[in-house]
Amino acid sequence: MRRQNLAVILSTVAGSGPLSRAAVAKRVGLTRTAVSSLVDELLGARLLVEGDVRTNGKVGRPGRELALNDRGPAGLGLEVGPAHLGVCVVDLRGATRVWHRVPARNRSRPAEQVLAELVELAADGVREAEAAGLEIQGSVLAVPGVLGPAHDTVEHAPNLGWRDVVPARHWPGQLRAPELENEANLGALAERWCGAQTADTLVHISAETGIGAALVIGGRLFRGAGGYAGELGHVPVHHDGPRCSCGARGCLEQYAGARAVLRAAGIRGTHRDPVATLAERARDGHAPTLAALAQAGEAFGTALTSAVNLFDPAAVVLGGAYAELSPWLLPAMADELAARVRVRPWDPDVLRPSSLGRSAPLLGAAHLTVRRILTDPARLGE
Amino acid sequence: MRRQNLAVILSTVAGSGPLSRAAVAKRVGLTRTAVSSLVDELLGARLLVEGDVRTNGKVGRPGRELALNDRGPAGLGLEVGPAHLGVCVVDLRGATRVWHRVPARNRSRPAEQVLAELVELAADGVREAEAAGLEIQGSVLAVPGVLGPAHDTVEHAPNLGWRDVVPARHWPGQLRAPELENEANLGALAERWCGAQTADTLVHISAETGIGAALVIGGRLFRGAGGYAGELGHVPVHHDGPRCSCGARGCLEQYAGARAVLRAAGIRGTHRDPVATLAERARDGHAPTLAALAQAGEAFGTALTSAVNLFDPAAVVLGGAYAELSPWLLPAMADELAARVRVRPWDPDVLRPSSLGRSAPLLGAAHLTVRRILTDPARLGE
Repeated sequence: MRRQNLAVILSTVAGSGPLSRAAVAKRVGLTRTAVSSLVDELLGARLLVEGDVRTNGKVGRPGRELALNDRGPAGLGLEVGPAHLGVCVVDLRGATRVWHRVPARNRSRPAEQVLAELVELAADGVREAEAAGLEIQGSVLAVPGVLGPAHDTVEHAPNLGWRDVVPARHWPGQLRAPELENEANLGALAERWCGAQTADTLVHISAETGIGAALVIGGRLFRGAGGYAGELGHVPVHHDGPRCSCGARGCLEQYAGARAVLRAAGIRGTHRDPVATLAERARDGHAPTLAALAQAGEAFGTALTSAVNLFDPAAVVLGGAYAELSPWLLPAMADELAARVRVRPWDPDVLRPSSLGRSAPLLGAAHLTVRRILTDPARLGE
Repeated sequence: MRRQNLAVILSTVAGSGPLSRAAVAKRVGLTRTAVSSLVDELLGARLLVEGDVRTNGKVGRPGRELALNDRGPAGLGLEVGPAHLGVCVVDLRGATRVWHRVPARNRSRPAEQVLAELVELAADGVREAEAAGLEIQGSVLAVPGVLGPAHDTVEHAPNLGWRDVVPARHWPGQLRAPELENEANLGALAERWCGAQTADTLVHISAETGIGAALVIGGRLFRGAGGYAGELGHVPVHHDGPRCSCGARGCLEQYAGARAVLRAAGIRGTHRDPVATLAERARDGHAPTLAALAQAGEAFGTALTSAVNLFDPAAVVLGGAYAELSPWLLPAMADELAARVRVRPWDPDVLRPSSLGRSAPLLGAAHLTVRRILTDPARLGE
């Protein structure tokens, strides 16, 4: 009970603070005495701070106001992408206090070398956070791949060239290895927690070279029975289409993955960021690129018809690097969805671009720890 | 707390009974005294019965054993289908005590006439149940259509010819109108509760003239953000296929719905049950029917590839009338799924026929009330 009440008070301050103890008591329906005892515990755990006495112009006694501590527990997010490393620290108020996302050619290097560099970057991030008075309470590493059932192994991350990599084995003994999570999943959670999406039930698309999606149900990630949910990139779009790298035919990735779109746009041998390249050409009005993006958008629309008809999300969010291609992808996606989702009402506003784009997985990784603390503050003492 | 403890004791007896009070206390970890007080309340509510003293051959005092009451509260299930009406009563032990499923040409009659007949059938069912010592505690009506947001209106049931029908308006004033639920949803729940499926996350297909599916997540129905989840029949199978009645192109129903399969099999103008007709021809080895069913199975496999890749269910159950066509549909479905679900491991045993078939919605309707009582017995007193 006490455990639950601590969480209720913390989330009340998180949602509506700053608030006086009296205002908290009124909102949660507990006695002033009970609230004060719980608040003292939260102050002791450095989760709340109590501000200066202030008069707010209303009748009654002035109260000291409670707020989430921005110099207390914090979450560390880490990320390995094909072409970057990232570290991020988020405080209890949800503010990003450390942010480093640096280019790194990870695809062509052994995993241990990539991870050694990440460890250094993480140590820098932790030092910065500590200098700002923050205490890291948990760390989560976003990876673009499929995790093993125990969540300690990256079973397969094709765009990193990783197979059965266990990051904890490459983590220095004195440091606690991060928890692993799929980047598409973290992207979806970030969109829900700190993006513009308030929908409880959504499909979040993470697209670049690979196309994945994460399903959020009731505000929580839905992973499927075996952890394989959200493989949007391999939904069949054309029954007898070209052979996909997965072995099937006509998968969405064959029409809308970055490599397929570059090919359709007639852009060859670029070593630059493929999505940035496509956005640049599209902005320049390069006709083959515009046509290729419209075709890709149509293919997305066909695959998403399956997702909408089966899953009925309140929002379909185009995220990941592809959020940058929204101006050219979304119109064709919207047309195709409007033409195909006919058995039930369809609101075109369900489809929208991510407000976080490429930043989402790293933000989600850092916020995960903060969210867990806010949901169950008693875990900090364990 | 007491409310929750009542539920724990009831579900312990339901899951492992008959059990003595001492055995219940041991299993739930409460004192014998606390358990006895709760058990007395459950006996008073006629949810449990206490049997004769029996010695079980073990050392110790013989105990009177507790079991769910099979002469107590019960659930009434009702169903309106295009060609039948149904009434079913299930007791707390899950035994079907009343079962009437009678042919009725409902498609060609006004809704009020159909509902008047259902009311009569329901009254007969209630009388039979009462004669057996049962008390109906709730009734649920299974309908093959889309319900309005308030769940009191059948917005559209194309196979009944119903639009905006409110069954409660046609229910006699002295009787409590049943709660409405979609038949595909109830079919899925029945499969989970009293069928052979133990999977927590499953896709249950209800197919006949229309093709629907219900998604079960964590043992509970997932309805989607707007209640439209599970429209498997309108997943695109062929990008530029024939126009569907919904207005889109190449929907699964155009390849695998009963009308499409009859047409492909060259069977015309039958006024009989289309699925029974197809099963009979297939059993006779009628080559065009066998080919049509194989084609339909392939189309199911393509559409289900989307469902499996997006949703990752532990079971995909072919239910409804089509369960009777399993011998001819499943092989092609299995082949297509094996060829297309390639990005992740695929276990062919995930795909299976329903053990309940056409009976599932009516069973689910009756079991819904019983399940609610077992989950929260205190609701009975409210």
